Amino acid sequence: MRQAGRVLPEYRALREKHTFLELVRTPELAAEATLQPIRRFGFDAAIVFSDILVVAEALGQPYAFSDEGGLRFEWLLRHSDDVRRLDAGGVVERLGYVGQALRRAGAELGGRTALIGFAGSPWTLANFMMEGGGVREPLRARELFYGNRAMFMALCEVLTRAVTDCLQVQIDAGADAVQLFDSLGHLLPAGEFEAASGRWMQRVIAGLRGQVPVIVFSRGAHGDGAALVETGAQVVGVDWTVSLEAARRVLPATVGIQGNLDPALLNTDPETVAAETRRILSVLRGRPGHIFNLGHGVPPGARLEAIESLVYTVARFA
Amino acid sequence: MRQAGRVLPEYRALREKHTFLELVRTPELAAEATLQPIRRFGFDAAIVFSDILVVAEALGQPYAFSDEGGLRFEWLLRHSDDVRRLDAGGVVERLGYVGQALRRAGAELGGRTALIGFAGSPWTLANFMMEGGGVREPLRARELFYGNRAMFMALCEVLTRAVTDCLQVQIDAGADAVQLFDSLGHLLPAGEFEAASGRWMQRVIAGLRGQVPVIVFSRGAHGDGAALVETGAQVVGVDWTVSLEAARRVLPATVGIQGNLDPALLNTDPETVAAETRRILSVLRGRPGHIFNLGHGVPPGARLEAIESLVYTVARFA
Repeated sequence: MRQAGRVLPEYRALREKHTFLELVRTPELAAEATLQPIRRFGFDAAIVFSDILVVAEALGQPYAFSDEGGLRFEWLLRHSDDVRRLDAGGVVERLGYVGQALRRAGAELGGRTALIGFAGSPWTLANFMMEGGGVREPLRARELFYGNRAMFMALCEVLTRAVTDCLQVQIDAGADAVQLFDSLGHLLPAGEFEAASGRWMQRVIAGLRGQVPVIVFSRGAHGDGAALVETGAQVVGVDWTVSLEAARRVLPATVGIQGNLDPALLNTDPETVAAETRRILSVLRGRPGHIFNLGHGVPPGARLEAIESLVYTVARFA
Repeated sequence: MRQAGRVLPEYRALREKHTFLELVRTPELAAEATLQPIRRFGFDAAIVFSDILVVAEALGQPYAFSDEGGLRFEWLLRHSDDVRRLDAGGVVERLGYVGQALRRAGAELGGRTALIGFAGSPWTLANFMMEGGGVREPLRARELFYGNRAMFMALCEVLTRAVTDCLQVQIDAGADAVQLFDSLGHLLPAGEFEAASGRWMQRVIAGLRGQVPVIVFSRGAHGDGAALVETGAQVVGVDWTVSLEAARRVLPATVGIQGNLDPALLNTDPETVAAETRRILSVLRGRPGHIFNLGHGVPPGARLEAIESLVYTVARFA
């Protein structure tokens, strides 16, 4: 459950002393932020406290968040020359702090709770790195994909290598599973998903060493998640808009399903959350490999009691 | 093609003298902004220059745009009392200026070019009226839908009546077709679309007097547009992410299809736009009732030559 920390008083206390990026870049603080939701809610798995844009920074495109939360890159990818500015050679070294955060969190978890690493997909990173933050509907990466395929592919080559490195660092540091967030996959026409996003995720997954399962999450999942199976992921994560009945129907029984409670429910009362949680569990009852999760991150305004109700309901469900 | 004006020098000249809302609220200026893209590109149909939020204002929730383009309501819908503040009784009268804009535009078009009226769907309006602008992922309307169904339904009753009135004003003023924009339909879980959005659009359409076709557009169209057929619309508009092959397969032959060129293509070169335009036309070749359109509004940065290439390609296609 990403961003579960934001509802916790102990996380807010951390954030009073440190910026978000200080937490991300300081292994002991990142480990602490990773563990806080586990101590509070007892989830079966922890997801490392990090940010998908650490890969952009490791490639040489630094960024920061303004006080209002707005994302700001020092420069934006616009031209072919900008792609050449990216330095894919030192990503493993420069992301050492992510590995250290995982090692620290893993040591404290002591194998009792699974630890998940993650990265953004090449497609999703391309959008952020070209557009910056604050844009409601990113457009430039699609423009590049249609209008300058050679530069698009050169960029994705670099990103694919860097994302692979980012996940490998986390696997080498003890991640029990890794997740690829294709958070902007829903911006793509159905017929272009494979060329613009799917094949690059497939290459990332194929390039990983070590036997850890990979979870691929894509917003909208292009209907039912079938397109995500092609990436070779062991688990497909679907957002809250996707019909789990449809996903159950089309996904092979060997592929796990992660999701998909509407995050908006965490802003309602515990009874409403419990009822919807039971409904989702019932849809996938008897199917192996359901990872119960939200269909997206924890929203601002989520209520502690609502998350507690969710956890209690999942644990009791039989 | 909504927002086609934004690329035109003649529209920019208008905007130097008037704010967006002055254009919307002044019939002769709205008519002028409606006609500019027709004079330039010769589209087969004009869509009236207006805004989906005119219904919110007519209900008693005024709004404005800041210089940076941010939307600001004077107050936001939050509590049951707020729903009672909405005055559905005088919407027809207060939207008289929309009707006047259509009459003026229609008089100049003289029947040679079809004229389309539009309104936002109740679901989409509920989101804006509860959340205001500037929010990347609206949440409050879903929160209300899950947590307080009685208030949600009371709100949708009011909105359904007002949206019906808004479209009726436009039909009475000579619209040849009307369009319902369910621009935030994609925020809903597949299983809740009917209850939260579909049924209210169905009631709007059933409540219209006069024999004009209704086009329903919904972002994502929940996969293939099948859920939109239930609204009773004669035409289903699908965004650029939807597979037209799938839409052709599932939509009844009696239902027209509108769409769905990726707006990002208008920022590329004329050849690229022409190729994709031909591909889309080919997919629906031989099927009655294709309205060629973008899969969403014209993006900032669209190139005049790209739009010209699209129009030329559609006109020549056989």
